[in-house]
Amino acid sequence: MDTYYAVIFTSKRAPEDKGYADMADRMLELAAQQPGFLGVESARQEIGITVSYWENLESIANWKRHTEHRLAQARGRETWYDSYTVRIAKVEKEYSFFQDAVNPQPK
Amino acid sequence: MDTYYAVIFTSKRAPEDKGYADMADRMLELAAQQPGFLGVESARQEIGITVSYWENLESIANWKRHTEHRLAQARGRETWYDSYTVRIAKVEKEYSFFQDAVNPQPK
Repeated sequence: MDTYYAVIFTSKRAPEDKGYADMADRMLELAAQQPGFLGVESARQEIGITVSYWENLESIANWKRHTEHRLAQARGRETWYDSYTVRIAKVEKEYSFFQDAVNPQPK
Repeated sequence: MDTYYAVIFTSKRAPEDKGYADMADRMLELAAQQPGFLGVESARQEIGITVSYWENLESIANWKRHTEHRLAQARGRETWYDSYTVRIAKVEKEYSFFQDAVNPQPK
């Protein structure tokens, strides 16, 4: 497995949307265009968790500095988030399970 | 910051509960009792993301081998999950934002 990095973004939202959903869609679209982007996974209930995957620390730093992303970060602190934490972590091990690989369905 | 580890567990559920919710509650309770456990965060929409935090790789390996957890893992592959991925990652950097620290509310 090639080394790669995960950015774990956990957040608590402020009560009102105020353009949050549009921004979130736009940031996903934009992140996916950045060099070194590998993928993203996201879910929200009481808290939101978004994990994005990157080839290296440089690609993460570049995305953090991206002009449109910086505006979104500032707006996030002003308006959208009660709190958030960002963790940058080096993925050292990975394994997956797929039900269909164990119990293939008839075609 | 002391080094610590994140276990990123992303999953797609099978349609029916079949005891899943009870097992999930029990595993959270049990994980929190393990040596080296630091915390857990979880959310589910189309996919589920659970991130647990641990002091070191040994505590993660011990939890993976825990008898009751192993039974849950086996049942998960048989019944509860269509697919899942586990990533073990070393947290290298962390920062947080708290709205109240920026804009303290009057008491």
